[in-house]
Amino acid sequence: MKKPKWVVEKEQARKADARETLWLFGLHAVRDALSNPAREKLHLMVTPNAQAKLEDAIAAAGIEPEVVDPRKFRPPIDQGSVHQGAVLEVKPLDWGRLEDVCIGDAAPRVVMLDRVTDPHNVGAILRSAEVMGASAVIGTKHHSAPETGALAKTASGALERQPYLRIRNLAEGIRSLQDMGYLVLGLDGEAEQTIETALEGRRDRAVALVLGAEGPGLREKTRETVDQLVRIDAGGSFGSLNVSNAAAIALYASRAHR
Amino acid sequence: MKKPKWVVEKEQARKADARETLWLFGLHAVRDALSNPAREKLHLMVTPNAQAKLEDAIAAAGIEPEVVDPRKFRPPIDQGSVHQGAVLEVKPLDWGRLEDVCIGDAAPRVVMLDRVTDPHNVGAILRSAEVMGASAVIGTKHHSAPETGALAKTASGALERQPYLRIRNLAEGIRSLQDMGYLVLGLDGEAEQTIETALEGRRDRAVALVLGAEGPGLREKTRETVDQLVRIDAGGSFGSLNVSNAAAIALYASRAHR
Repeated sequence: MKKPKWVVEKEQARKADARETLWLFGLHAVRDALSNPAREKLHLMVTPNAQAKLEDAIAAAGIEPEVVDPRKFRPPIDQGSVHQGAVLEVKPLDWGRLEDVCIGDAAPRVVMLDRVTDPHNVGAILRSAEVMGASAVIGTKHHSAPETGALAKTASGALERQPYLRIRNLAEGIRSLQDMGYLVLGLDGEAEQTIETALEGRRDRAVALVLGAEGPGLREKTRETVDQLVRIDAGGSFGSLNVSNAAAIALYASRAHR
Repeated sequence: MKKPKWVVEKEQARKADARETLWLFGLHAVRDALSNPAREKLHLMVTPNAQAKLEDAIAAAGIEPEVVDPRKFRPPIDQGSVHQGAVLEVKPLDWGRLEDVCIGDAAPRVVMLDRVTDPHNVGAILRSAEVMGASAVIGTKHHSAPETGALAKTASGALERQPYLRIRNLAEGIRSLQDMGYLVLGLDGEAEQTIETALEGRRDRAVALVLGAEGPGLREKTRETVDQLVRIDAGGSFGSLNVSNAAAIALYASRAHR
């Protein structure tokens, strides 16, 4: 019997996921990944110079590097990337299910990204999320920046430590969090209430902050699904915040005052 | 009589300043600059396509563009820059003296940058400063990101509207602001007090926030000159914020509650 089309597609998607690898580059990113036991490492390529600098991390990871003369070092990454003589092929991290990651402790904070595709922005958001103690950053499988070397570099180590989940459907993810007791706030420059007023007397709640890409903002479906639209209390009149700066302020403004 | 060496050097510096021009690129940045009456425009180079898109702005600016066939469009900017067929040579903006720009209205806010050299960070900070209603962003003449096309692009229009001053000596600038009545706070991850506690009962004060580059942080001289070192109240333990995200949060945390 022939398999139905949707089964075939699902199997193909699973196979593509299994094949998916990425190349991290630069001494910092490579060292962070080597030191992460949860990171599946496939292939390390280094110059002798970089090998010496990464000696401890390479030994700890128990990986056999391919040592290449700097003049012949042609890693399969973008030409302009500053690799510092070290590249590492890895699998994306598997952070598990949204429901497990977002259990958190008292009053967890979560960032959700509605089609934020720029890896530099997502990298900076991972970094802020880690510093501000957020439980997770959640994007979508499609139309979200995937794990890449550029994202890892901007995240400055946070990619290895800060849960970054990419789920199939953002609205479903929002509803899951609502079922778990989360208050889900959508960021919108035109909203009436500020984050601060929306959270008055509710700082003990679990809170998810949903941000859209610059320009389009939140999609209609997202706006309909969140509990409330809120804005950042800004004094100026012109311009709009870069999405990573908006995320940083939103995390700060919604912190639990522990 | 021979001029003393310091006079010669000063004259040379003034001449260098007078020669200094930069190339803005991209439809948005070029349109913003064309629409800014305070911006001295020297040379506009466009493809016919870009000319059509910028028609109104070109007419309003009263500038005669050099129209170039797209196949022969070789503007004097970095190869990788996405110019969209429009580049504009301009002079840096002259925002005047720190003392005049920072008079502001009630409880003005100012950002000072201690050797922040990355144009993308400074661009993002200009953008946040505009949204958060800051009176000025102040860097140093040397060791600060100068006005460039890349900075203008990241600033997303804010470079034309948000005062960005580069002064000779940061410590002197800090003392000038203190003389004007500013409370000058230096950002330091290790500081004991948070921005919020430092400002308790002093929200009506004029406030300057001083941020250093990632890694080195504030220089010793800067740390000695500010009124107080403060940190951002973050819940997480690892990592550190990107400087533009730190500036955005600091501006938010210190807002005047008008």
